[in-house]
Amino acid sequence: MSGGKGKAEGTTDKLEEFGEGILYDIKMKRNPKFTVTTRTRSNIKYDDKDGFLRLGNSKEEHSFINVAQAKRFMQTVAIAAKCHDFVKQNLHTTIRGLFYQLKYSLGEDIDENIFNEQSESNPLIEDLEVALGIKREYMHLNANRKGVLAGNMKVIDRFGDDRIEIDTGKTGRSGWAIPSDVDNDIEFVDVKAKYVIVVEKDALWQRLNEDGFWKKENAILISPQGQAARGTRRLIRKLADQGLPVYVFNDGDAWGWYIYWTIKTGSMNLAYIGRDIATPEARFIGVTMADIEHYDFLKNLTMRATEVDIKRAQEMLNYPWINRHKEWVAELKKVLETKKKLEQDTLQGPRLTFVDDYIREKIKNRDFLP
Amino acid sequence: MSGGKGKAEGTTDKLEEFGEGILYDIKMKRNPKFTVTTRTRSNIKYDDKDGFLRLGNSKEEHSFINVAQAKRFMQTVAIAAKCHDFVKQNLHTTIRGLFYQLKYSLGEDIDENIFNEQSESNPLIEDLEVALGIKREYMHLNANRKGVLAGNMKVIDRFGDDRIEIDTGKTGRSGWAIPSDVDNDIEFVDVKAKYVIVVEKDALWQRLNEDGFWKKENAILISPQGQAARGTRRLIRKLADQGLPVYVFNDGDAWGWYIYWTIKTGSMNLAYIGRDIATPEARFIGVTMADIEHYDFLKNLTMRATEVDIKRAQEMLNYPWINRHKEWVAELKKVLETKKKLEQDTLQGPRLTFVDDYIREKIKNRDFLP
Repeated sequence: MSGGKGKAEGTTDKLEEFGEGILYDIKMKRNPKFTVTTRTRSNIKYDDKDGFLRLGNSKEEHSFINVAQAKRFMQTVAIAAKCHDFVKQNLHTTIRGLFYQLKYSLGEDIDENIFNEQSESNPLIEDLEVALGIKREYMHLNANRKGVLAGNMKVIDRFGDDRIEIDTGKTGRSGWAIPSDVDNDIEFVDVKAKYVIVVEKDALWQRLNEDGFWKKENAILISPQGQAARGTRRLIRKLADQGLPVYVFNDGDAWGWYIYWTIKTGSMNLAYIGRDIATPEARFIGVTMADIEHYDFLKNLTMRATEVDIKRAQEMLNYPWINRHKEWVAELKKVLETKKKLEQDTLQGPRLTFVDDYIREKIKNRDFLP
Repeated sequence: MSGGKGKAEGTTDKLEEFGEGILYDIKMKRNPKFTVTTRTRSNIKYDDKDGFLRLGNSKEEHSFINVAQAKRFMQTVAIAAKCHDFVKQNLHTTIRGLFYQLKYSLGEDIDENIFNEQSESNPLIEDLEVALGIKREYMHLNANRKGVLAGNMKVIDRFGDDRIEIDTGKTGRSGWAIPSDVDNDIEFVDVKAKYVIVVEKDALWQRLNEDGFWKKENAILISPQGQAARGTRRLIRKLADQGLPVYVFNDGDAWGWYIYWTIKTGSMNLAYIGRDIATPEARFIGVTMADIEHYDFLKNLTMRATEVDIKRAQEMLNYPWINRHKEWVAELKKVLETKKKLEQDTLQGPRLTFVDDYIREKIKNRDFLP
């Protein structure tokens, strides 16, 4: 079984060391404890050197002999034990599946459940991820998956007892659905593309895929299908690690910007795995306010910015990692001034294939925001 | 180009006949008009014989020389002309892409747009679908796609100039992403499975896929990933047409029931294409209130039914196509009585693979709701 080797084995080791450490403390009549880096807002920092959101140095200790922490401590150990089982069995579930397993464990005859609500178990999974330095995916807890890809590349998917080779250049209109975990039992080979283009909306991805854009351009065409899931962010990071430039093509509005910055710098709630899912090298190719001036026809296709767009633009102007870029300051100020927004779909206006030329020209002219 | 043949050609013909009819009326100095079946609630009927929601016989005429209808008439013709282009070019877009093309057409110098909001163009596309008897997909207007499939089957995807053969038994952890249009340029061959199992949540689909459930059972494993999109509903219908029984495995709550009944009888807003997307043969295998009594461990894993669940259960008891089934009446009454609900994820409680046995046993014992 391929899952038993390599990375998964490291996970088993870490989970076992965690348990053995606790046992040892008990044997030595010491108070068992473990340390986690704090994930509260005040400990989320922008890493100036590397350009992504990460946790700071503030730590907290969880100990067993502490009235306020004993239950939480016990719960965390229960989670670790279950995940150890999942890895050993080489089976995956979700954080919801884990919750039900733990709720089941104590059964109906015991008054107190380990957990009553999933909102109790979720943060403790993150505690474990941080304390042991292993991502949830390594503990066989899948996150929601979303996102699709086509391009000159092959995927080796070691799935159960099978070794499946998927040519992502031969997935037709469907594309390859990006899984939750792109690290374990999965490999990307023969990556022959020159760059990665990420397109916010699936509709536009389908448009470009139909035109064979990725084939003509020798690119890898990805859509996160809205906000990017963990798996998609991780995959973009991995492709950037292979030296491929990453261009992002989104709506010119609150959501489009947010999706871009999440891909680029990571997000607050995943700051604890920031380095693994952020792609600071990413560039925003559009759509931008300047496009409205450049392409005459877009003037008739703008929309009024909503309150959400305005509020978001104001917020973004306050983030030091955004307002250090004069190009973004200019872009956001123009939104506040004109109160306009623009969707990427508008680029189909003159003809359906216009969007292909738009992207090509932007990349050729290196006309993008940092 | 493969798109020019067969069904697409029929679409071109119909769109051209539509235009020629209008031209002819004008030449003959008659008022151009066309007839559409009314899509208002009062004209949505449950087809007692065949078991799905469809439109009744009430029709309305749209004519050009009528102050209230002239603009709408002109708009519909503009849509038909654009779709004719799309089919001729063998290119696809969305109803949003169509909207922007039409908004573009008149340009910024003309005071009046053909459309100001997409909410104006959407219903006219449905008018055309109904008036001409061609679905949107045939006019190259993709709907949102969602849904994933694995199983013993091959897909021939004639995509642009390529003919791509996809073995849906070799799509690994990802599965095959079900496209918006499963009728044109796409074919399902070597369907060797014995039945279709539809699983509401992608998380459970992944669980079953990992266990090789579809392989062991010789089934086709589909997840609509929530409410089923047009393409997924149409695909389920097509698989049922091949003689495969269809079993649906959902949450036992408002959403789970709704998703089931939508697959089975279609929905109000798509009643105009009811026959093509409804699968009255479908059966609901769970989760059910009876499961809570049958499987002891589930007693600890139920949740309190929400207001939405209660309201939905009451509504469903009023639908004649639901309350004719004593099994559904009993199920819904038990929900109202106990105020409980149950998620399909709970079946992972005793062990992750328990869900496989649950489905297998249900099907073996023919223990499902109609």
